[in-house]
Amino acid sequence: MPNPQLTAHGELRHLLSIEGLSRALIHHILDTAQGFLGVNDREVKKVPLLRGKSVFNLFFENSTRTRTTFEIAATRLSADVVNLDIRNSSTSKGESLLDTIDNLVAMHADMFVVRHASSGAPFLIAQHVDRTRGPGVHVINAGDGRHAHPTQGLLDMYTIRHFKKDFTALRVALVGDVLHSRVARSDIHALTTLGVPEVRVIAPLTLLPSGLEQMGCHVHTDMRVGLKDVDVIIMLRLQNERMRGALLPSAQEYFKHYGLTREKLALARPDAIVMHPGPMNRGVEIESSVADGPQAVILEQVTFGIAVRMAVMSMLAEAR
Amino acid sequence: MPNPQLTAHGELRHLLSIEGLSRALIHHILDTAQGFLGVNDREVKKVPLLRGKSVFNLFFENSTRTRTTFEIAATRLSADVVNLDIRNSSTSKGESLLDTIDNLVAMHADMFVVRHASSGAPFLIAQHVDRTRGPGVHVINAGDGRHAHPTQGLLDMYTIRHFKKDFTALRVALVGDVLHSRVARSDIHALTTLGVPEVRVIAPLTLLPSGLEQMGCHVHTDMRVGLKDVDVIIMLRLQNERMRGALLPSAQEYFKHYGLTREKLALARPDAIVMHPGPMNRGVEIESSVADGPQAVILEQVTFGIAVRMAVMSMLAEAR
Amino acid sequence: MPNPQLTAHGELRHLLSIEGLSRALIHHILDTAQGFLGVNDREVKKVPLLRGKSVFNLFFENSTRTRTTFEIAATRLSADVVNLDIRNSSTSKGESLLDTIDNLVAMHADMFVVRHASSGAPFLIAQHVDRTRGPGVHVINAGDGRHAHPTQGLLDMYTIRHFKKDFTALRVALVGDVLHSRVARSDIHALTTLGVPEVRVIAPLTLLPSGLEQMGCHVHTDMRVGLKDVDVIIMLRLQNERMRGALLPSAQEYFKHYGLTREKLALARPDAIVMHPGPMNRGVEIESSVADGPQAVILEQVTFGIAVRMAVMSMLAEAR
Repeated sequence: MPNPQLTAHGELRHLLSIEGLSRALIHHILDTAQGFLGVNDREVKKVPLLRGKSVFNLFFENSTRTRTTFEIAATRLSADVVNLDIRNSSTSKGESLLDTIDNLVAMHADMFVVRHASSGAPFLIAQHVDRTRGPGVHVINAGDGRHAHPTQGLLDMYTIRHFKKDFTALRVALVGDVLHSRVARSDIHALTTLGVPEVRVIAPLTLLPSGLEQMGCHVHTDMRVGLKDVDVIIMLRLQNERMRGALLPSAQEYFKHYGLTREKLALARPDAIVMHPGPMNRGVEIESSVADGPQAVILEQVTFGIAVRMAVMSMLAEAR
Repeated sequence: MPNPQLTAHGELRHLLSIEGLSRALIHHILDTAQGFLGVNDREVKKVPLLRGKSVFNLFFENSTRTRTTFEIAATRLSADVVNLDIRNSSTSKGESLLDTIDNLVAMHADMFVVRHASSGAPFLIAQHVDRTRGPGVHVINAGDGRHAHPTQGLLDMYTIRHFKKDFTALRVALVGDVLHSRVARSDIHALTTLGVPEVRVIAPLTLLPSGLEQMGCHVHTDMRVGLKDVDVIIMLRLQNERMRGALLPSAQEYFKHYGLTREKLALARPDAIVMHPGPMNRGVEIESSVADGPQAVILEQVTFGIAVRMAVMSMLAEAR
Repeated sequence: MPNPQLTAHGELRHLLSIEGLSRALIHHILDTAQGFLGVNDREVKKVPLLRGKSVFNLFFENSTRTRTTFEIAATRLSADVVNLDIRNSSTSKGESLLDTIDNLVAMHADMFVVRHASSGAPFLIAQHVDRTRGPGVHVINAGDGRHAHPTQGLLDMYTIRHFKKDFTALRVALVGDVLHSRVARSDIHALTTLGVPEVRVIAPLTLLPSGLEQMGCHVHTDMRVGLKDVDVIIMLRLQNERMRGALLPSAQEYFKHYGLTREKLALARPDAIVMHPGPMNRGVEIESSVADGPQAVILEQVTFGIAVRMAVMSMLAEAR
């Protein structure tokens, strides 16, 4: 089965998952993003690449922050952006997901940015528009269930490349609720594809999915062992609902064992960087002095994220 | 009393209802829409006709889909669009409807797109802005109560003209909840004005309003009789609340008698087209195989709808 | 401590409060607004002063009307505006206010328009962005708690200057719920700074804050005494929740004593103007015949408000 994300010429038609992207293509996206970084520093933060294109933010799951990053990226490319509050829309009147998509495509939509609670929904939409409309409509997965969050994965790779240059000699640790994290899944696929020799996953047993070893990860339950000599630490957000559930004893207990403190950070390499996809729970998965400390690159991630989303959107718009 | 929709020169100042528009004016709107259809196929889907104009979407009743079509139409004309969530606004703080309008006019609003649960609300607003501000502010009715939905009526006429060319030899059937349907009312006015010789209305007795014969319709309660040899079938949406109410026995029963199936469609002319204003209740008023079948032009309606709304907006903006 | 609103050269960097602005600077803002008034009358209501700038409307407290005025002002300056529904955003996921700000600044925000229920929140944000980002990010207070609503104060001054020319011979009365009114506080600071010799405050004892005399006001509880020979009457909105609370006997009783009727208006100078920040409670704080009468300049306030907000935004954007 051919990869639905790619055109016959290997260009990016949709961005659904980092799984299946080649090392060269990921680097090409990051290179393109580098070019867009400058746009965001200009007096007039705008380029006309998507002028007159209609981008639809379809957020079936609420995320003001992620939606905002896509809205800004599209606006700086001069696209017309429509935010659809799906919970109030026709789909809640009993219309099916694909009927909604067909309608928006009939309005000459050019691009859909899709956040959905069900894994695979963006894939389903991409398949449907390809079948019914041919190659002119593009889909970006902005997070689907526990499956993937590819633009977050790509901006994390941009951040690592920016600060560490070379992926092929790194030790990277992902820490926290890996079980429920689409960010973790996207990061792991990207890191292994880019040739990171040692990807470690650190989490309590109740938050560890199966199959991590097959994905090429080294699994740790003791953070003090797992952080030893790493170059990059990616902290994961702990969803409040997990803390209230049966999976964890308490936020305090979690912080004690898996919260990133200055003391635990000292186990990593002295030039290690600390990342977090946000929003942070200070005092739960990360200590404030670390979040605001000299090794944190959390706000740089946000800045790079706009450039990465501009890069992806402009590459999709050019694919035929 | 002069028609408040028209200027002294017979140009469109507001669009409140299809009732009162001449055959020539309706054809002029459809001709104008035809010109805009091409804009939506361009690389850059934008013309500068409404640049620097402020269009306000005032949706007192929620309808993400209809609001989106107007937002897209206005944006492709380069207008600045403000969506007002009225349920959270000053009107819910006890401010009157006309105080809200006065305020927005004082901000130099150029156009209001109004959806309201009360029949006549857009008319009231148009009268008020004419009296207080003169001819520079325009009102489009985007659906008021059970009264009218003129842009839907116009896009339906565009669709029929596109596929059938000539109105004067057609049999058209409207099927379903005519009692509560502003779409049906707008369509009937448009069809009779455009010279359709036979407009049939098909519905259960509980969903038939009085006065249809006076409007020039032939009334049927048996779908198998009503569909015989028609050229155009316009299915109406069945509101969920009707199904739960006392007006209908059940959705299954409704579908059996008034749902459009392939078998019932075969009673119409072989080249009959099937229309629906959306969102569809598949399996209630229409069978999926018909909705997705070769005679359905439901998505074409959506495409034409954007062009029709662009046409109406640009014509209003030019009226003085 | 230097005024955080001003640059070292005395230019406006943030607009947090009218307190601390000089008479010359206030007049400079009003002069600038005068220039923008014409833009709103043009065929194309747009100037490119903020093209490519990102303006964020951060409304932690709901106010569709005020948000709309800022959205329109920014759009007519050609800025890109993002409306953030904060109640649904990361801050409700436990992220701190300043983390949210840091994130948006990392996305290269240029300006924040902040409405917040807590007095001082915009000041806090301004301080934070100055400390972390230097002078390139600007904050406008769109109403904070009971503290200030400076753009409303400025548009009120614009209105008075427009109709009365000279501030230095005026009697101005503010009437109503002064206790809970940030508008009153901003107006009093502006009026005394601009040299109004007699500022009167008229309210029932339960709605009078302490300290008014120190601010230079004359306090009245009898409206018939307080309105005598005034040139300007500024009515304040009575919040519904006050009427339900213990502070007032009833809306009828309030109207009898503090509602502006034609009869009470006759006590003021014959050319007195009547102002109200809106939305009005007709029949509670103001009689409809006065609100719609020849002395009311309430809609002119709205029109001037757009020009004043354009002026403030353009001045901030130029400050370095």
